Order: sequence, then C-alpha cells, then structure tokens
Amino acid sequence: MKRLVELAKRRGYFFQTGEPYGAVAGFYTYGPHGAALKANLEEAWRERWSVMEGHTEIDAPTVMPEAVFQASGHLDTFDDMLVECAACGESHRADHLIEDETDLEEPESLPIAKIEALIREHDVRCPTCGTALADQPVEDFNLMFETNIGPGSSNPGYLRPETAQGIFVDFPRLKEYARGELPFGVTQIGRAYRNEISPRNAVVRTREFTQAELELFFDPEEHAPDLSSIRDVEAPLYRAVDQLDEDGTPVDMTIGEAVEAGIIADDWIAYYLGIAAEWYEAMGVDMDRFRFRQHQSGELAHYASECWDAESDVSGPEEDPEWIELAGFANRGTYDLGNHEAHSGEPFTVFQEYDEPKTVERATVDPDMSELGPEFGSAAADVAEALADLAERDRSAFEGESVAVEVDGDSYTVPVEHTGFEVAETTEAGRHFTPHVIEPSFGIDRTIYTVLVHAYDEDEIDGEERTVLRLPPEVAPTFVGVFPLMDKDGLGERATEIAAALREAGFSVTYDDSGAIGRRYRRQDEIGTPFCVTVDYESLEEDTVTLRERDSTEQIRLSIDELVPTLSGLRDGTRSFEQL
Amino acid sequence: MKRLVELAKRRGYFFQTGEPYGAVAGFYTYGPHGAALKANLEEAWRERWSVMEGHTEIDAPTVMPEAVFQASGHLDTFDDMLVECAACGESHRADHLIEDETDLEEPESLPIAKIEALIREHDVRCPTCGTALADQPVEDFNLMFETNIGPGSSNPGYLRPETAQGIFVDFPRLKEYARGELPFGVTQIGRAYRNEISPRNAVVRTREFTQAELELFFDPEEHAPDLSSIRDVEAPLYRAVDQLDEDGTPVDMTIGEAVEAGIIADDWIAYYLGIAAEWYEAMGVDMDRFRFRQHQSGELAHYASECWDAESDVSGPEEDPEWIELAGFANRGTYDLGNHEAHSGEPFTVFQEYDEPKTVERATVDPDMSELGPEFGSAAADVAEALADLAERDRSAFEGESVAVEVDGDSYTVPVEHTGFEVAETTEAGRHFTPHVIEPSFGIDRTIYTVLVHAYDEDEIDGEERTVLRLPPEVAPTFVGVFPLMDKDGLGERATEIAAALREAGFSVTYDDSGAIGRRYRRQDEIGTPFCVTVDYESLEEDTVTLRERDSTEQIRLSIDELVPTLSGLRDGTRSFEQL
Repeated sequence: MKRLVELAKRRGYFFQTGEPYGAVAGFYTYGPHGAALKANLEEAWRERWSVMEGHTEIDAPTVMPEAVFQASGHLDTFDDMLVECAACGESHRADHLIEDETDLEEPESLPIAKIEALIREHDVRCPTCGTALADQPVEDFNLMFETNIGPGSSNPGYLRPETAQGIFVDFPRLKEYARGELPFGVTQIGRAYRNEISPRNAVVRTREFTQAELELFFDPEEHAPDLSSIRDVEAPLYRAVDQLDEDGTPVDMTIGEAVEAGIIADDWIAYYLGIAAEWYEAMGVDMDRFRFRQHQSGELAHYASECWDAESDVSGPEEDPEWIELAGFANRGTYDLGNHEAHSGEPFTVFQEYDEPKTVERATVDPDMSELGPEFGSAAADVAEALADLAERDRSAFEGESVAVEVDGDSYTVPVEHTGFEVAETTEAGRHFTPHVIEPSFGIDRTIYTVLVHAYDEDEIDGEERTVLRLPPEVAPTFVGVFPLMDKDGLGERATEIAAALREAGFSVTYDDSGAIGRRYRRQDEIGTPFCVTVDYESLEEDTVTLRERDSTEQIRLSIDELVPTLSGLRDGTRSFEQL
Repeated sequence: MKRLVELAKRRGYFFQTGEPYGAVAGFYTYGPHGAALKANLEEAWRERWSVMEGHTEIDAPTVMPEAVFQASGHLDTFDDMLVECAACGESHRADHLIEDETDLEEPESLPIAKIEALIREHDVRCPTCGTALADQPVEDFNLMFETNIGPGSSNPGYLRPETAQGIFVDFPRLKEYARGELPFGVTQIGRAYRNEISPRNAVVRTREFTQAELELFFDPEEHAPDLSSIRDVEAPLYRAVDQLDEDGTPVDMTIGEAVEAGIIADDWIAYYLGIAAEWYEAMGVDMDRFRFRQHQSGELAHYASECWDAESDVSGPEEDPEWIELAGFANRGTYDLGNHEAHSGEPFTVFQEYDEPKTVERATVDPDMSELGPEFGSAAADVAEALADLAERDRSAFEGESVAVEVDGDSYTVPVEHTGFEVAETTEAGRHFTPHVIEPSFGIDRTIYTVLVHAYDEDEIDGEERTVLRLPPEVAPTFVGVFPLMDKDGLGERATEIAAALREAGFSVTYDDSGAIGRRYRRQDEIGTPFCVTVDYESLEEDTVTLRERDSTEQIRLSIDELVPTLSGLRDGTRSFEQL
C-alpha cells in the first residue's frame, strides 16, 4: 500500500525517523495523528484485555540482564539466518531470499544446511548487487540488541525482544499482589526490540515496536474459561491441515463449533480467539481480510502445545494477498516459569491449599553417613543425595538388599539398611504448583498499519476524487472538526466557543479556519475525522450548525444545544447518522 | 524514606526488577498500583502540557543512530566522572564521593584534575572496601547505552538519553504538520536511558526512566506568552545569588513580581514555571517542600541562556532535607536546530513571510574564471567561493582595485574587475529563520516518588496505628473500594452490582470481600484509595450505603442513587466531603 504509506508520511501518521540523516532502516516515528491513533488503540486494548478481564497491568524496564535471556532461551535460539554478500557486503535474511525465489512457505523453520543447498540450487543472487550467494555461508544471527550495563563489559544487558519476560521474571512478587490465588492475569503494553537483518514494509517489520501482552496464570485441572460470551462469535479459521492442501482455505465457523469439533483444542485459546475477533472488528479491521491461522506442528515453538495467529491481509486493491501476523495466542504450559525457577534457584510456584488436608505416603532416606563416609569418601554426600532422589522417584528400588545409584557416571552400591529408607504417611495442607500460561500477544504497530490500510479508500464526491480514511470513531485521532464558514462577522468567535465546549465534553477536536470549506472537509476526510461541524450565518441567528458525516458526506442541521448529546451517541454507537 | 520504599515494594507500587536473579541496580518495575499511578500522572501531564496548550504529541524510537548524538553533543559531553577502586574493582561516581566527603555543592561542574586533587586532599576511600582512591585516575564515562544496529558493528546506535532528540531530528517534517507557522509546540512522553555509574535512591536515579518533554519553537522577536493566567501564582524561587549566600533561602513571590524584578529573565520560562507550580500542587506535591532553583552561571549548559529546575525535598520526618530535581525549564536558543542543520546539511528553518515584500540590497560576485583559472589553478574554485562569502560579509573590501582572500592559509589577490562584484536590489517575500526553543523537561519517575513521599503519613485511628497515602483523587491508582460487610445474604451480589455500576461510570474500582472491614479499610488507606463504599444489611432494605473518606476516616450514609453524582463531584472537586 504505497499510497497509504505516502499519506501516512504527508499527513503525520508515521514516517521514517531521522530523514535529515538518511534514516536508518527499521525505525519509525509516529507523528501527531499516528501517536493519537496509537494511544486510542492502546487504551482500547487496555480496557478490553486488562480492565474488563479483571487483570492488572505492570510497567517493567526494556533493558534486562543476560541471566533473564539465558533462562528464557532467547540467547540461544532467538536467531534469524544471515547471509552476507561477498561483493557488496550487504546483509540479507537467507530464508526471505528463499521465500522470494521459490514457492516454499515458512522456510524459516528449515535447517541452515538446507537453506544453503536451496541457495545453490536456485542460484539465489544478492538483491543489492546481483552477485551469486551460492558460496556464502548462512549463519545464525541473534536478534537481540546487546549493550553493557554500567562501566566495562562485565554486565551485558539486552533490549527485551518481548514484553513478557518482564512479567515472568518477577512472577514471585506479582503472585503476592494477587494474594497467591489462581487464575490471575498480568498485562503489559510497551516497547520491544528485534535487530532485524532486513527491516521492511513500513511499520510492519521494524527494529523497535510496541507490544501488548497478557500472561494468564492458571491450573489446567481447576480453571476453565466461561465460553458463553464468545461461543457464537464467527471467525475464519485456517487450520494447519488446510494450509498443507493446495486448495485449502480458511473455514468460517463459530468459536463454539470449533471447540466442539476439536479444531481449537484449548478452551482458553478459544476464549481469547473469540474476544480477539470481536476486538479487531471494533478497531476497524475488515473481517473479510482477517483470519486465525493455526501453527503447523513444525512451526510450533517446542514448549507450546497449541498456537494460533491472528493475521490480516494488507495488500492494496488488485494486488496479491499479503498476510501479516497481528497477534499470537499460545499455550506456553509451564515453560517460562519452570525455566526461571531452574535458572534462578528461586521458587516460581503458587501454594495451592487442598479443600481439606491430604494424607499422603512419602518415601524418604536418612543415610548412615558413618558407613557411607568411609566407603565412598568425597562422593558420599552426592551418593546420599542420589539416594534421596531415587526414593522419591522409584521406591521399588529399595525392595532388595542393596540399591545402586549413579554419580557422575560411576555406580555406587549401598546396602538398603544403610540408607535409612522409610515410607511414612504425612499430612499436607496443599501443594506447590507451577502455573500454566496462556499468552495472547499483540503487535500494536501492525494493528495500526492494518487499521489504516483497511480504512483507506478513494471515492468520488460531486465529480471530485477524494481520499478518505474510514476509521471507527473509537480509534480516529480526531473525532470532530469545527470550522467557521469564514473568519469574520463573529463566526470565528462562535466556532471557537463551540470547539472549546466540545473539548470540555471530552471529544478530540480540531479547529480549522483556513481555506475553502470543501478543502477543509477533504483534509479531515484524509486523516479520518468522522464528523465535522460548520458554523455559518444561520448559526449566529438561530443557534444551529451543520453536522457532516465523513463516509456519506451527508449533512444535517441541528441546534447547538443538541451537539454534545448527539456526538456522544454517535461515538458510543447508541445513535446512527442515518437516523438523524 | 525507607518506609515508603518498603511499602512500595510490599503493596505493588514499585520494586527492583529481577529479584530472583539478584536484581541489577538502577532498574525498577512498576507493579499494578504503580503502573496505574504512572498512567494517571502521564495522562494529567498530557492534558495540561499538550492538549490545553494546543500542542501535538509524537512517539519516536528510543534507539537512534550515532549521527544524531554527534549533532546533539551527547557523544562528546554526556559524561560522568568515574573512579575505579584498584582493590575491589567497584566503580564510583567521583563527584558523588567528593559531595559526600566535603560540603561542596555541585562538584559535578569541577574539572577532573580538581576532583583528583580533592580525592587526595580528603583521603577519599572506596565506599565498598575502604581502600584509598588517592592514586586512581578519574575518567570521563559516557552515559549513553551503546548497541549495534543490524549485523556487525558498522552502525552503532544509542538508547536516547532524552526524548527531545526525537523531536529535534525530525523538525523539518514536524514543521510541515504545523503548516510552517510559529509558535508551535511538540510534546513526547517516553523512555530515556542513562547508564549511571552508581544508581541510587529507588526510582530517583535509575538507568531507565520516563520523561515528558515539551519543545516550544518560536521567534523571540515576535512571540511572547500571555502571562495573565499565571501572573498571581506564588512559588518559592531560589535564585543563583541566594545559593551562594550561606544563609540564603528561597523567596516566596508571585511569578508576576519575579518577572517585574527581572529575577526570571525570559517570559516563556516565567509562563511555564507558573503552570508547573499549579500542576505539581494538583498532583499532590507539598508546596512547602518544593522550590524553583535557578542554575548557577557555571552550571548552565553552554547553549542555555537561562535555566530553572523544579525541585522537591523527599526526606522523611526528622531527616535532613534531600532536594531532588523534578524538572528543568531551559531556554535552549537555536542550539539544537542549528546543530542538526550543520551536521545533516538539511535546513532546520521555517520560512517567515514578511507582512509585505522587502526590497534589499545584496552584494554578489560572478568571477571571471577564464582569468582565475590560469592564475590559481586547482585553487580557483575555492577562491571564487571565498570571494562570494566576502561579498556577503564585507562589501567595502571590493572598494579598491584588488581584493585579497585566504584559502587554506594561502592568500590570493584578485583584481576587482575579475570578480564580477555587483550590488543589486532584490525583492524578498520573507526569510529563512531558525526557531528558538524553550524546553520544559519533566522526570515522571521522580514526580511519582515525590508524590508518594509527600502523601505518606502515619496516624492513629481509634488507638490503632495506621499508614496512609494521602494521594489526590486525580492520581490515586484506585478511586473507590467497594466492600460487602459479609459475603452472604445477598450482600456480595449487591456490592458486585454497585462495583460494576461505578466502573461503568468511569471510576477505577477495587472490590474486596476478604477479612474484617477494618482491615479492608487499612488496606485501601495504605495504597491511597480516597473513598470506600460499604454494603450492609441496611443497603438491602433501604438502598443506602456508607461512604468513607480516607483522610478523615469519617463516614456518611447516602442513597445508592446518589453514589455516582456524589463521587463525580468529589473527584472533580465540585463537592467536598465535609459539606456532605
């Protein structure tokens, strides 16, 4: 959508940062209208995904120390495949080159050797200078921005690649704020960073972006969502199996049907897909250019048991479809909390009290160190520990006369009478439990881009071509424009008063008194302002104004007293312009 | 304020990030209440400093390329003085050590050699291990976090040390959105980063923080603020001269008086100090622990002609005063735009049309290259350029028979007849002008900290000690708590309905049904919730509830129907609890 990107730059939605210095790829600034649209979208997300769901929001730093990303796995696996041109030195994403040259989908999941072979096979060339890349090595390139915290380089830090880790890493404290009771959800809206090899497509693939994420902590045995509110929501579901079929297409069905047919396995994911379909539509996403795509099993992260992406088609008219990922909905199990527990040595669990205390059998050992010490020397303590592990794991091992354990590859045999093995009943009030996580993760910039592309339209009004952004009132940066017909005879003063009263009533207002009225309407159409109020000579005599609607360009006349209640009704959807 | 920091951690205002990994100094996470308070403060800032002033807000990246910070001067001069302990390897801020050991104020502005001398003279020792630092070198340490953009290290990037550069660097585009008309203001709220050598004092000196900045672009010859709205605002002004006097203290006076007495030189700075005094008071800053401090001439950045800081005292009861900087108000002149123009080669000016075209005399040259070429060889082009510069600068140089110019240290003499020198009248419609900048720059985290410290109180209610945060309703994370007396006999259901109705009316609501009522009140007092509604048996019979005020702990009974209008009035200040 070249025209949209051009409009975005010209009218202050977004533009590449630092143009006077030639602009570094992958960084965009939201201008006045873009920043306002972004704030509206974020507020709408917060209201729907945090407040309405009864969750709490936090605000964590964007720079985090290495230990966090060792635990999360990003340090080891958050890579893209890099190939450098020997001739011009330009870096390229190897899987993207393959995607452009072949009809393979998602070559991202292929191993490096396979990508190198494909480059040779298809004689892929450097898009910058045309040199063959066949002999160039393909390498893993970690996508995190690295820096140093404090003087020297002993304390590396990284710009977070997702907001989620700021929630996971301080789960032990966040669970206290939730009084230790599952299920609870924590949300966060903020910056995230990926040092993309080749950023592209305006704000779709940038190096710095905004995410809105929700981490729901729950016990799959105990907690299920109430699906009644979203059971009848319809959405196009693009199953993994349909994607493998050459003629496969998404199937429209209700979330309830999808759950019953087992297409969506996890009820929580179904619940969030239902909310998401309604939310995206309210934000102005065209549902005919929207789908939920199930991850292929090979594409699934190893820790995720199920994942669906929300996708939108952002192609322009008469272009090939261009699907981009807007959000992911993943069942992450205990992967994140379990990893942080293992790496930090601190508990990332909640204590779940049983309805009534339970009596359970526990197998324990109490090794006789006066026997083990002399016999095993420096290995004695490790042997004792191995015995304790074994008792917990497999009490049948203690049924014979002696028991064998392995320590550092060596086997040690201990007479059972020296192990102090015992099975005893204990009463337990509850258990320490690692919560499971469902994560709806939204890209805000891609939502902005989709909403703008889907709102973009060109039509003809009175024989004149017009560009119009058909944005829903909830997200439009300006809700109402106020114009005096001319800036004389007191028209300007009256219009200024009206603009002030509308601002006071909580509307986002633009005042414009320059140029012909038609041109002022076009200017507001182009930035997506849903309504305009014009003050003319009748306004002074009869206290009325004209109210014009953007999409139809229809105008009505109404009394100034009715302006605020009418606009309020139009904003919250309790009135429609046609009725008026 | 150790107790405040402890409360902040326990109740979810803020805590050090990543405690399970030992937490890296200088990074804090805002928990649920802190994030809500922060969002309220940011929204209040946006409303007062952007919307009410008619400015626009943008949202620029936090990572920017090196060229930006070469131009801004941060790469060369954004340093702190670092001294490392030879024994334990710990890094310290040398000027802070001097500040702690002597009664020198602002040793930050002293040269390195002087700091080294002071360390020797006072035998300053490593605060960590006690080893003498006398023989250790003091070095400049650049406070920007550095990273690499894209693969390799050929494109260094930095985390922005202030949000402002995101506005300055794209001024040429932002001026288009303002249709090229001065004055206009651009605001931004967002993250900024300083790689502090020794972060300290909770969220006061962190490595990642949030700023809210306003850049006002204007022509000092043409544009002055209307001071009428803030002329009578009183504020304690701590003049540079008072700071040098041992007994000097701030003087309370109105902004109007300060302008007339020439204490505040710039009207724009006076205007913003007036707004700031009112704004901080509304946010809950105790004005008895607040002052505006004028920068000493040695402390002023070389580009700033005048600067005042807003400061607050964040000491606890019976502690020595501890003044911290909350905001700075600086006249930056043309420094920023001029630098970006010089470094980028692009114009950072606006075109100001004259009221009517002006006829001016311009001196130009048109050198005869057929003469200059043979005579000066490869220097001829430079000589021609030097002649053009000279004509603009000093036309009297062309009054004799020949004219001399210097190129790369060599002097060249040219007969005037070969220069094509001419003075002609031209008509000009306007001029290209570099706007001046006034910058009010706010630290959001320090405002949060001040508001919490000033709200913190301990008192005694019915013989029981209580901790209470006396936060203004506008910033409190929760506006009203709703409690059923007990969760039985339908009390819980009625209270849930009331909570939902209050949420619907736009209030931030907490529902709590666990523990004794008194304990629930204490819990809300401690997080600063201004009002609590309790649903009891009378509520079921007579449709009334009790409404309790936090500060006085007084309770009144009122009908459920009146709850929303009463709370609205209490929130916007049109009603007071005493009247009720």
